[in-house]
Amino acid sequence: MLRTHTCGEGRLTQVGQEVTLCGWVQRIRDKGGMIWIDLRDRYGITQLIFEEGSTDASVTETARSLGREYVVAATGTIVERVAKNPNLPTGDIEVKVTKLEVLNPAKLPPFLIEDETDGGDDIRMKYRYLDLRRGIVRKNLELRHQVARRARQYLDDLNFIEVETPVLIKSTPEGARDFVVPSRMNPGEFYALPQSPQTFKQLLMVSGFDRYYQIVKCFRDEDLRADRQPEFTQIDCEMSFVTQEDVLNTFEGLVRHLFRTVKNIELPETLVRMPYSEAMRRFGSDKPDIRFGMEFVELKGEDADLTSGKNFVVFDSAELVVGIAAPGCAEYTRKQVDELTEWVKRPQVGAKGLVYARVNADGSVKSSVDKFYTEEELKGWAEKFGAKPGDLILILAGAADKTRKQLNELRLELGNRLGLRNPDVYSVHWVVDFPLLEWSEEENRYFAMHHPFTSPKPEDMDLIATDPGKVRANAYDMVINGVEVGGGSVRIFQKDIQSRMFDLLGFTPEEAQHQFGFLLNAFEFGAPPHAGIAFGFDRLCSLFGGADTIRDFIAFPKNNAGRDIMIDSPSTIAQKQLDELKIKTAL
Amino acid sequence: MLRTHTCGEGRLTQVGQEVTLCGWVQRIRDKGGMIWIDLRDRYGITQLIFEEGSTDASVTETARSLGREYVVAATGTIVERVAKNPNLPTGDIEVKVTKLEVLNPAKLPPFLIEDETDGGDDIRMKYRYLDLRRGIVRKNLELRHQVARRARQYLDDLNFIEVETPVLIKSTPEGARDFVVPSRMNPGEFYALPQSPQTFKQLLMVSGFDRYYQIVKCFRDEDLRADRQPEFTQIDCEMSFVTQEDVLNTFEGLVRHLFRTVKNIELPETLVRMPYSEAMRRFGSDKPDIRFGMEFVELKGEDADLTSGKNFVVFDSAELVVGIAAPGCAEYTRKQVDELTEWVKRPQVGAKGLVYARVNADGSVKSSVDKFYTEEELKGWAEKFGAKPGDLILILAGAADKTRKQLNELRLELGNRLGLRNPDVYSVHWVVDFPLLEWSEEENRYFAMHHPFTSPKPEDMDLIATDPGKVRANAYDMVINGVEVGGGSVRIFQKDIQSRMFDLLGFTPEEAQHQFGFLLNAFEFGAPPHAGIAFGFDRLCSLFGGADTIRDFIAFPKNNAGRDIMIDSPSTIAQKQLDELKIKTAL
Repeated sequence: MLRTHTCGEGRLTQVGQEVTLCGWVQRIRDKGGMIWIDLRDRYGITQLIFEEGSTDASVTETARSLGREYVVAATGTIVERVAKNPNLPTGDIEVKVTKLEVLNPAKLPPFLIEDETDGGDDIRMKYRYLDLRRGIVRKNLELRHQVARRARQYLDDLNFIEVETPVLIKSTPEGARDFVVPSRMNPGEFYALPQSPQTFKQLLMVSGFDRYYQIVKCFRDEDLRADRQPEFTQIDCEMSFVTQEDVLNTFEGLVRHLFRTVKNIELPETLVRMPYSEAMRRFGSDKPDIRFGMEFVELKGEDADLTSGKNFVVFDSAELVVGIAAPGCAEYTRKQVDELTEWVKRPQVGAKGLVYARVNADGSVKSSVDKFYTEEELKGWAEKFGAKPGDLILILAGAADKTRKQLNELRLELGNRLGLRNPDVYSVHWVVDFPLLEWSEEENRYFAMHHPFTSPKPEDMDLIATDPGKVRANAYDMVINGVEVGGGSVRIFQKDIQSRMFDLLGFTPEEAQHQFGFLLNAFEFGAPPHAGIAFGFDRLCSLFGGADTIRDFIAFPKNNAGRDIMIDSPSTIAQKQLDELKIKTAL
Repeated sequence: MLRTHTCGEGRLTQVGQEVTLCGWVQRIRDKGGMIWIDLRDRYGITQLIFEEGSTDASVTETARSLGREYVVAATGTIVERVAKNPNLPTGDIEVKVTKLEVLNPAKLPPFLIEDETDGGDDIRMKYRYLDLRRGIVRKNLELRHQVARRARQYLDDLNFIEVETPVLIKSTPEGARDFVVPSRMNPGEFYALPQSPQTFKQLLMVSGFDRYYQIVKCFRDEDLRADRQPEFTQIDCEMSFVTQEDVLNTFEGLVRHLFRTVKNIELPETLVRMPYSEAMRRFGSDKPDIRFGMEFVELKGEDADLTSGKNFVVFDSAELVVGIAAPGCAEYTRKQVDELTEWVKRPQVGAKGLVYARVNADGSVKSSVDKFYTEEELKGWAEKFGAKPGDLILILAGAADKTRKQLNELRLELGNRLGLRNPDVYSVHWVVDFPLLEWSEEENRYFAMHHPFTSPKPEDMDLIATDPGKVRANAYDMVINGVEVGGGSVRIFQKDIQSRMFDLLGFTPEEAQHQFGFLLNAFEFGAPPHAGIAFGFDRLCSLFGGADTIRDFIAFPKNNAGRDIMIDSPSTIAQKQLDELKIKTAL
C-alpha cells in the first residue's frame, strides 16, 4: 500500500511512530513559519505539520504549493499536539512531515467539500463524484451498506436463500410502464426491465426454494414525481407454507433487527396491525403517520349526524363531515386560518373550503358556521372531538373518500407545522386487509390494488361473483412514520383462482395465457401456498438516515427528467447501433 | 407456519413427537395394505407411512389419490423405521400419518424430478421451475448463495463498502456491443445497460471511497458463444492508494477465503504470477491450465533451430516450429494419429498439418518426417522435449502467434483425453504484464487489450511514442484450471495520460470528451492512484461446483439465441409502447 495508516487512526499511543498517510488536502494554514494541513480520507482527518527551519526546505516548499483537494502522500512522525482538538478522534496528535509527494494536483472544486456546502443541487449532481466526498453524503452510503449487510444477516440466519432473477424479462401490460430493450438477435422483439421480480420469485416457490430473498434493482418508466427514481432497489422476499401471520412476524423481525443493529433502537414487542378500512376512517390514509394524534372525528357519517337540518347546505349535502382537533391552535389568527383554508383549496389538496371551531380557554366554542349552529350544538361537536380548551377544530365535508384524503393532507401538514413529525422518533406498524380491487372510472374496469397475484381473503371469496369491489385481500403494507416502506401479500397459488382474477381484471383467457401462461402452467405442477413482501430499500435507508429524500442515499441518482447529468445520459446513439437493432427513432 | 418441521429434520430422538410436514410427493409405494410416501422439500425427504386398519380409512384413501409432485400437508407421529435407510439423514424414522391434506394437486411433470432426469435441455429450460426442483440444480444455486456470502464476508471485513452503481447508463463505443433502452422522457435518446461499472467505480475512487465492491449484473449484446449469457454477474472491486502487488495480494486472499470456506481446500501460500509473454511461450494461452505439463518446446524459434536446412519446406518456411510431448501416447495407432491430425485441421483450430514423432520403448524415434531427418536428428528433438519412451511428440509449424494458439487447443484436447483436467483438482494462478494494446488489422488501429483505463507500466511509458505495441500494462488475470475467472488492472488516474491513451485508440479529443468527459474532468479534481479487478461470478460458481457450464448456476438462464423460453422473452410489445417511446421497428 502507498500508506501505512489511514487518516483516521492516529492516537497518542502511537507518538514517535513513523507513518505514511495518503489523502486529500482539506485545509491549509500557513502562519508564522508554520504550515498545518488537514489531510482527509474516508476514515478521518489527520493534521500534518511543517515547521520552517526544522522541516526540510523542499518539503515545506511542496507543502506551500498545495491547494484544496490535492492528493498527497505524506511521511512523518506522529507527535503529540499542543493544542488538542477534542472534536476529532485523531485530535490528540499530528504528523511532523519529513517527506511529501503530490500524487495528483486538483483544480479548485466548484463547491465546498464540507458538510455545509455552498453548491446548489444541479452543480452537485453534475460533479456528483465531488459531492460524494462530503462526509454527510459518504455516511449515507455507508449506512446503506450497513442496512444491506444487516438485512442479509437476518435473512441468511433464517435459511432464506438469495437468488438472482433476470433483468432482461418480458413486458407485461399490468402495472406501471416498462422500460424496454430491443433485441438484436430477435429483431422486432423486446425485453423489458423488471418492475419487480414478482413472477420469478413465485416460480422459485413452485420450485421448492421455500425461502427466497434478493436485494435487487427494479425499474419503472413513470413520470418522476418528487423523490421517485427510474431505477430503485428492493429487498424482495417470498416464503412457502406460510400464513399471513407468519409473514408479518418474520418481517417484523427483520425490521426489528435493522432498528436494533443499525439504529440501536428497540421496537415495541407488538406492532399495530391496522385494517385498511380503519386506517382510512381514522387517518384518511393507507399509510397513516401514527406518531401523533389528531385522529379523524366524524360529525356526520355512518354512525353519527350532528350537523344536518340546520340549513347549512354544505354539510347537509355532504356524504361525510369530518375533522381534526389541532392542539393549541385555537389562538391562530384569522389570517392564519385563512391561510390554512387557502392551503386546503390548492389543487394538490382540492377541498372546497374549511370550517373551523375554536375551543376557547373558557370552554366556549367559536366557529365560522356560528350562524347555522348554536353554541350548544358547537359544544356538542367539541365534545365529540374530545377537544380541550386551546384546540382548533378543522372540518371538511364532501364525498367520503375524497374528503378523507383531503383531511389526511391537512393533518400531515399540521403535524409538520406543529413539529409532531420528528424524524428521530420512529413509529412502525402494519396496514392489513386491503381491498383486492380498485375501480378505474377512466378504463371502466377493475385494477388489482396490489397486483394480480394477490389472494382474496378466503372468507370474502363468495363476494367475487356478487360484489368484487368489497372483496378484501390478504395484503399488507409496512408503514414507518407515514411512509410505506414495504408491501406484500399472500399469493394465489391455484390456477383456477388466478384465471378468475385475470378475468376480473378484463383479460381474455388468450391474453392471460399469452402474458402469464408460464405462471398459470406452473400452478398446475404442484405450487405450494406462498406469500411474500418487498421493501423499498432506498426509502428504508432514507428513513434510517432521518432524511426526506431517497436521492441522498443513492450513489448516482437521476434527476426528475430521468437524466444523469454527470455522465450526460440518456444520449443519442450511433446510426450503426440503431441499424443493428432494426429500429428507427420516430420523432 | 403450515408445518411444524421440515422434511429434513426427523431423527430418532424425536420418536413419539407429533409433527406436520409440508412438501412434494416424490414417490409412492402401495403394497400389501401399506402405503409409503417419500415427501420432499428443500431440506430433505421424509417417509410417510399409512397402514390399512390402523390408519383412518379416509386418510388412506387420500393417500391413494395422490400423484407425483402433489403438494400436501401431513400430520402424524414420528416412529422408528424397521428398515432404516442409512443414505438419508432422516432414514431412521418415518411419520405415521393421521391427517393428510392436499394443498395443491399436480399434473404429471414432463420429465423426472430426480438428479438423473430423462428431460432434454430444451424441455428442462421451458419448465425451468420444475428443473430447479431437482436436488443437483438446487444445490448449484445454494452454492452460489454461499460463494456470494463468503465473498461479502471477506470484503466487508477488509472495509470494502458495497455501492450500487446505476443500471441505466450511457452507451460507449469501446468494448462489446451495448444493450440500449429508449428513453420516453428524452425522445430519440437511449440509456445503455452497463458492460461493467468500470467508470463508476473509478469515480467512487475519485470520491474517496477507497475500497469498493459490488456483486452486480452486467450486460453484453454479443452473439452468444457456448456458455455466454447476455446478462451475467461480476464481483466488481476497486481500491485506492495501492500498487499492483497490493491488489494481487488482496484478491488472492479473497479466492483463498472462498476455497477455504466453501470447498474446505487450502491453496498454496504463494500463487504463481506468470508474465503474459511466458504464458504464451510455454502454453500458447493467456489462461493456461497448469494442472498438467505438456509444455511447449520450440524446435525452431528465437533460441533454437533444430529443423532448418533439411529440405522440409514446411519447417524451413515456418517462423516457429513448436510441439508438445504427450505422455504414453506413442502407442497411438496410425488411425488415432490421423484423427488427431484431422482434429487440428478443423476450422476451429486451423492448423495446416501435424507432424509427430514416437519415442519407442527402445529409445528409437519414429516420425512422419523420417525422410527429411536422420534418426540422430530426431533423437535430438526427443532430447530437447525431454521426451521419455512411450511419449508421442506432436509438432505444429507456422507463424508464431497463430501456431501457439493452435498448439494450445491441441494441448487442452489431449489433457482432456488423457484425464489430466480433473475438475476436483484446482490450480489457481495469475497471469500478469499483459500488452497494453492489440492491433486490429480489420480496423487498422490499436484496441485496448484490457480497457482504455488500464495504466501502462511506468517503465514502458517511453515506448508509447516509439513502439506502442510493445508497451506492457499493469494488468492481471486470475486463472483457475485454464479459465479466466477474474481480471483487472492498475488504472490511469492522470488526465494527460488518459487523453494520450484515447488518442492512441483513435479517438479525437472531441470524441474522448463527448464519451468520457466526466471521467477526464474528474481526474482534474484530485484523483487518487487506484486499481481494481472484476471476477466472473457465474464462472467462479461453476468452477466451485466442478461443472463446465455457467448455465447450471444461473436460476433463469437464456438460450444461445438470447431467449428465455420459459417466459417466452423477448417478445413483441404493444404499438402504444412504441409510440410512447417514439421508436419504430425497421425490419
